[in-house]
Amino acid sequence: MSLLDHIHTCNRWNPADFEPFVVGGERLGLVRRRFAKALTEGGGDFVRAEDGLHWVTAPADFDARSDAFAAHAADWDRRGLISHRHGERYPVLNAAGEARFLMDRAVAPYFGIRAFGQHLNGYVRRDDGLYLWVGRRSQSRRVAPGKLDHMVAGGLPWGVSLAENLRKECWEEAALPAAIADRARPVGIVAYCRDSDRGLKPDTIYCYDLELPDDISPRCNDDEVESFQLLPATEVMRIVDTSDAFKLNCNLVIIDFLMRHGLIGPEHPDYLALAHGLRSAPAVAQ
Amino acid sequence: MSLLDHIHTCNRWNPADFEPFVVGGERLGLVRRRFAKALTEGGGDFVRAEDGLHWVTAPADFDARSDAFAAHAADWDRRGLISHRHGERYPVLNAAGEARFLMDRAVAPYFGIRAFGQHLNGYVRRDDGLYLWVGRRSQSRRVAPGKLDHMVAGGLPWGVSLAENLRKECWEEAALPAAIADRARPVGIVAYCRDSDRGLKPDTIYCYDLELPDDISPRCNDDEVESFQLLPATEVMRIVDTSDAFKLNCNLVIIDFLMRHGLIGPEHPDYLALAHGLRSAPAVAQ
Repeated sequence: MSLLDHIHTCNRWNPADFEPFVVGGERLGLVRRRFAKALTEGGGDFVRAEDGLHWVTAPADFDARSDAFAAHAADWDRRGLISHRHGERYPVLNAAGEARFLMDRAVAPYFGIRAFGQHLNGYVRRDDGLYLWVGRRSQSRRVAPGKLDHMVAGGLPWGVSLAENLRKECWEEAALPAAIADRARPVGIVAYCRDSDRGLKPDTIYCYDLELPDDISPRCNDDEVESFQLLPATEVMRIVDTSDAFKLNCNLVIIDFLMRHGLIGPEHPDYLALAHGLRSAPAVAQ
Repeated sequence: MSLLDHIHTCNRWNPADFEPFVVGGERLGLVRRRFAKALTEGGGDFVRAEDGLHWVTAPADFDARSDAFAAHAADWDRRGLISHRHGERYPVLNAAGEARFLMDRAVAPYFGIRAFGQHLNGYVRRDDGLYLWVGRRSQSRRVAPGKLDHMVAGGLPWGVSLAENLRKECWEEAALPAAIADRARPVGIVAYCRDSDRGLKPDTIYCYDLELPDDISPRCNDDEVESFQLLPATEVMRIVDTSDAFKLNCNLVIIDFLMRHGLIGPEHPDYLALAHGLRSAPAVAQ
């Protein structure tokens, strides 16, 4: 395990395993060939062609298309073709970044839909260096139970602004009021694309830094986080460098934090590979 | 002119105009086809084949190869095939990052050799926000005379460490002593590849932030810089966004600075394109 290993883990996928997902003549995603085959066995709504899987009966209207897709997803869920539905909806973007319809967050990977999220590095500056607030995910969570996590992190659902969502997540996950959340500074992005159990996950994460004074601490406010601890940034680096204790994508956002703050410097043998790897090129589809 | 325009300007090149530069079976660069043709008219040392321009008489030994190349460069300079020689030497790296020989800094673009440099954002934190120290290049400089520039910036010659070179440049360009230079914090890289008059320039710039107290100012120490001024970061952003007053690559390093410090945020319509564009993928050769 090394810093670079985490970047490789988050960017592992084989283009040959996937085919384009085409709706209304636009390539909107990438579907695993095996899943595309399963979908087309059900009937005539989805058809495979040379250039990919076509949803041939997709309504042209945004809302009608979103509703029709949700009905299909419910059917796939009943038939066990997908693992579950989440309830939160993500926009399906075309190559120009325009939303074409909405898709359940848990279904998006089956169609290789890019998801957007926000991760917040909560840190404290002390005389002996930087400290990072680290959360531990509840054992009851479906994704990465018990793993270490950012102080605040979440997906970006449809129709909520970045600022609004960050405030909401800061309150729900760390009991930090809006006045504190609004001090968070956007500091760039991390992007990757990975083959997961459910399909392809091309993710873009908006990264934020939030410097906290010594007298303000995050506090568990829902059942998603089990506990918080404040660790020296050098100790967090050691954990990332030598283990998979953190949820997969947190490793990348932390590496970005450590590079921006000079804790990983150009003397690191993988410095250039890390810097390029944190913002891997968009996947084929988008 | 927009922020994104600067990134496009620094990444403009047409792969069809170039062919690989091959030495000892290794692809080490990219040569403009026209220049490759001119080189092969002189004799038998350089030969064009299907897979690129081969330096067929290159010695295997590192020093001997560097010397032999320098002799060729002197000849091309006399014959007016190249614009000039600089005197400082850059390493020519193979795909694995191993140095294969040394090449004059001014000749490197003719062979599409990746150059490495360092840019330092000198900034001051005041109650009303961040200020950036901006230099103006002398009218007498060969490259970008009279353009705005970073407080400190320079190429990375062979055999000098990053820390050593930064100290040297801080002293030469801004009269800042080593004790101040050593406070500079590495904050990542910017990478681009551009077609220039002389050939292809794939550049990787190591970026640094140096926070200065209000009572320490840079001071012109050689004839490379004409003057320094301290500008609000928002004013620097306006200049970059609306003009080409800065030397080309400075625009990219400043955009990176503004993104890391939250002055360009995700509400900017080009945020994702900017973030990806600052670290464009390595050129074909390397």
